[in-house]
Amino acid sequence: MTNIAEIEAAARRLEGHARRTPLLSSPFLDEIAGRRVWVKAECLQHTGSFKFRGAWSALSALEAKTRKRGVIAYSSGNHAQGVALAARMHGVPAVIIMPTDAPQIKIENTRALGAEVVLYDRATEDRDAIGARLADARALTLVKPFDDAMVIAGQGTTGLEIAEQAANRGITHADVMVCCGGGGLTSGIALALASRATGLRARPAEPAGFDDTTRSLATGEIQKNAAPTGSICDAILTPAPGALTFPIMKRLCGPGIVVTDDEALRAVGLAWSRLKIVLEPGGAVALAAALYHREQITTPDVICVASGGNVDPAIFARAMATVT
Amino acid sequence: MTNIAEIEAAARRLEGHARRTPLLSSPFLDEIAGRRVWVKAECLQHTGSFKFRGAWSALSALEAKTRKRGVIAYSSGNHAQGVALAARMHGVPAVIIMPTDAPQIKIENTRALGAEVVLYDRATEDRDAIGARLADARALTLVKPFDDAMVIAGQGTTGLEIAEQAANRGITHADVMVCCGGGGLTSGIALALASRATGLRARPAEPAGFDDTTRSLATGEIQKNAAPTGSICDAILTPAPGALTFPIMKRLCGPGIVVTDDEALRAVGLAWSRLKIVLEPGGAVALAAALYHREQITTPDVICVASGGNVDPAIFARAMATVT
Repeated sequence: MTNIAEIEAAARRLEGHARRTPLLSSPFLDEIAGRRVWVKAECLQHTGSFKFRGAWSALSALEAKTRKRGVIAYSSGNHAQGVALAARMHGVPAVIIMPTDAPQIKIENTRALGAEVVLYDRATEDRDAIGARLADARALTLVKPFDDAMVIAGQGTTGLEIAEQAANRGITHADVMVCCGGGGLTSGIALALASRATGLRARPAEPAGFDDTTRSLATGEIQKNAAPTGSICDAILTPAPGALTFPIMKRLCGPGIVVTDDEALRAVGLAWSRLKIVLEPGGAVALAAALYHREQITTPDVICVASGGNVDPAIFARAMATVT
Repeated sequence: MTNIAEIEAAARRLEGHARRTPLLSSPFLDEIAGRRVWVKAECLQHTGSFKFRGAWSALSALEAKTRKRGVIAYSSGNHAQGVALAARMHGVPAVIIMPTDAPQIKIENTRALGAEVVLYDRATEDRDAIGARLADARALTLVKPFDDAMVIAGQGTTGLEIAEQAANRGITHADVMVCCGGGGLTSGIALALASRATGLRARPAEPAGFDDTTRSLATGEIQKNAAPTGSICDAILTPAPGALTFPIMKRLCGPGIVVTDDEALRAVGLAWSRLKIVLEPGGAVALAAALYHREQITTPDVICVASGGNVDPAIFARAMATVT
């Protein structure tokens, strides 16, 4: 299991490469939430999401000889861009397996970051078979999106920063809401806080209908989502918490909070108007939980991790319309 | 004339109250500009613009007895919000004189920040007479938007941060493009850089048709704009550089760069898609200068101050449409 020493080692490897993102606030958000709201703006991380941390951590932890042969990842979104940029900055090849129906802009961005994009047809082709064949032929290392110790350690560096930033502001007790898909970010932050800020407690935030982690925590067993898609929070629609991430979350996290797509959209709008940051709906569910489910928050301060900002303009226009 | 000691004193007064804003970058912006582009994201400052720095500096420099009676400012925009919040955080009253035709949202925000908003009709009433009467009756102190030594010192703290952030990244020579209205931010940054980073040179960026500072620097004499309005860069449409700011800029700044409204809008769009920050057109002219007037930049690195992000959704939707 990932431990605090691994997170601190990841932090040393990320130093000077990943951004230390700011903790933002606005009196207007405080008023809506009925308490002090702090937003960890991880959308300002390289490639627009926290995923760069885990990708850098995983790549930088490889032996030089292994890394040099290159890495491979499956992703239609933020993980793809994080791995592509981390590989380019290491000067090694990256192959990203993406579905043909992924948004064109994400395919283009991943290519523009220097990765080789291999497209597959979701209906007729087997993604894993394609990936395994390529990985085998070129001896590429697979970088998983969340269920990997070094990826969890990388995401956990967000938690080290939160612990320090909270201490600087005199915040000793707070719920720390984290946008949760497979649980890499949530479990990493939970581990960091458990060691470095014991009054801060990580809690997952999820979209309605995709509350696998919330239900898993409530029942103590891994639960799956009923459907693979069907929310605008596309970045965090993972089928179930991971085999590595869930035990960490079960041990350390408080209960999950579930928000509607509409609440996520309003949080995107408020982050735009009040914080001047760009969030995608999946990156705004933690803020939505704090703003619209205040009765479930237990502390006078709440910290919300705003995990990503790769959003298309039509969705963003809808979000702006909710606050004007 | 404002000096480096005053800027450093302002920095000490701002410590723990103003935000230290990040210096962001994207390989996609570097490619467009043909060099490394760094964006000082001052839109993430409290109230969404750098104006909070100058307002806090001015208020905190007053004698306690004077400050307690309150402050007054004229503004339809960012200065209003900066003064309102700085006054509230000091626990003193603020009166803001705003035109009746100011955007409703800006009037509401200024009120929500605790200020007393006094509206006047641009066509029939004399703003200065109203302000003078109120200031006199209540012994309020006027906080000018730019032509004030303590305001310039406050804006100059942005330059201290740039000097340090550039040094941390090994940047020893760079043009520092600054969105320029009356010149408070530009002159403050120029002073800070002249003392703390001699290889960094401040240069104003302005919208076409409102290039008063660029022409003033070229001719050595204060020049005025032909019209008061007529650009989407409303935040920086000041009639002419100030009596205090111009001599500083004349002594220390490189030549200005003028951008079109369309270029400013495209820069807003790229800041949205590539940096995940929200800019208003007037806060994006420095970035537009770096992206679209590369032949006028003289250094391998260029730093752009993104000065504000208080933008309405219709303009923002137009900006997003330029990059998608």
